[in-house]
Amino acid sequence: MPRYKLTLEYDGSGFVGWQRQADGIAVQQVLEEAIEAFAQERRLVEGAGRTDTGVHALGQVAHVDLRNDWEPDRVRDALNFHVKRHPVVVLAAKVVDDGFHARFSATQRGYLYRILNRRPPPTVRAGKVWWIPQPLDAAAMNAAARHLIGKHDFSTFRAANCQADSPVKTLDEIDVRSDEDEILITVRARSFLYRQVRNIAGTLKLAGEGKRTPDDVRDALAACDRGRGGPTAPPDGLYLTDVVYET
Amino acid sequence: MPRYKLTLEYDGSGFVGWQRQADGIAVQQVLEEAIEAFAQERRLVEGAGRTDTGVHALGQVAHVDLRNDWEPDRVRDALNFHVKRHPVVVLAAKVVDDGFHARFSATQRGYLYRILNRRPPPTVRAGKVWWIPQPLDAAAMNAAARHLIGKHDFSTFRAANCQADSPVKTLDEIDVRSDEDEILITVRARSFLYRQVRNIAGTLKLAGEGKRTPDDVRDALAACDRGRGGPTAPPDGLYLTDVVYET
Repeated sequence: MPRYKLTLEYDGSGFVGWQRQADGIAVQQVLEEAIEAFAQERRLVEGAGRTDTGVHALGQVAHVDLRNDWEPDRVRDALNFHVKRHPVVVLAAKVVDDGFHARFSATQRGYLYRILNRRPPPTVRAGKVWWIPQPLDAAAMNAAARHLIGKHDFSTFRAANCQADSPVKTLDEIDVRSDEDEILITVRARSFLYRQVRNIAGTLKLAGEGKRTPDDVRDALAACDRGRGGPTAPPDGLYLTDVVYET
Repeated sequence: MPRYKLTLEYDGSGFVGWQRQADGIAVQQVLEEAIEAFAQERRLVEGAGRTDTGVHALGQVAHVDLRNDWEPDRVRDALNFHVKRHPVVVLAAKVVDDGFHARFSATQRGYLYRILNRRPPPTVRAGKVWWIPQPLDAAAMNAAARHLIGKHDFSTFRAANCQADSPVKTLDEIDVRSDEDEILITVRARSFLYRQVRNIAGTLKLAGEGKRTPDDVRDALAACDRGRGGPTAPPDGLYLTDVVYET
């Protein structure tokens, strides 16, 4: 029974997130229904990152086992045909060996957080960015972000209902830069706590406004106290950009 | 009575275009209603480019006369407040002299046409690009585009209901390039015929597919016959990027 690795793009706006929920349509569910429509079998689709309600993906990865040996491109095209009422597509499909697990084999996940930093609200980019009208100092945000790199207890940036065993994570990279009227935050780690990226984005926003110095952010991290972190940034600006595997 | 130059951004999806129509909401109308709500006066807002239904703008320009001497930033912010249910914003407002006319003083208009060239349809970019699943040869498209530069009778690219006095226009620049999974067509001219950019994009798409050679496109232009041009590209991919004035 071949295992397929699927690389996915979706607009999170219309979804309750990756994982099936009682109260709305999940990305996972749309894919599982597309697989059932195409291959006439009910299969679990396992995703690398359980993106939250409204969070977008440019390179989510999932895997699924199918009974038949379909051509990978045929799987991609058939799924894109069967999901087409929903804003999710399979960018690529390939056969992987049975040891591959979208979630557990992943060695790094990359996220992008987009802030639209200008006085007028978004139009063309509505729902795709976090709009912050007051000017942000990207250099101060980046200086604050430096303190988060490496292995730390990230309790300050952990949502209350996070199910991870430990609050200790290793942030491999974080970078804040201006790009025309946007401020882009990119982060990379093997794995993240629940809402960690959005809580970091909300805290860096305070640093950009001058309400927190870079040292305040360092101290907030060291305090291991969610109360010392900034607000949770909205899902609109968050994109799961890619997932890295060893082989 | 001061005259204000307004630089505008909008998502064309929800509008019948720039100009007031009987059957839907126009960008011009939303702005005129915002001005009435803010300044308590009914004013005509003149736009540089009468963008069609569904066409977006990143830098449309308009002008309006107001009775009072408002601070330009106050005008910008007030209009953004009053239009806020609609996806149109004033990026900048400034006072200009009475001789300035958004439409007639413009010396150049720039447009961008975005094609998403990949097999899976758009998700995050739905409504913002023209999706073409078959691979396009951007170099062939650019070679075809070369033939359109300069002063020509553009009847081959003119919509039937175009109201311009003459089909002769001067295309200052046209460029086709790949950018990741998109093909971007940029054009600049003092003015354009009705649907000229979309008709050019539709014709270049045929060149990209190999259905027209660059020489075919040159011959089609020379024929001055709309029947020799390609299909009209959809409005989704078209953006009025900027308008240039002498001073």
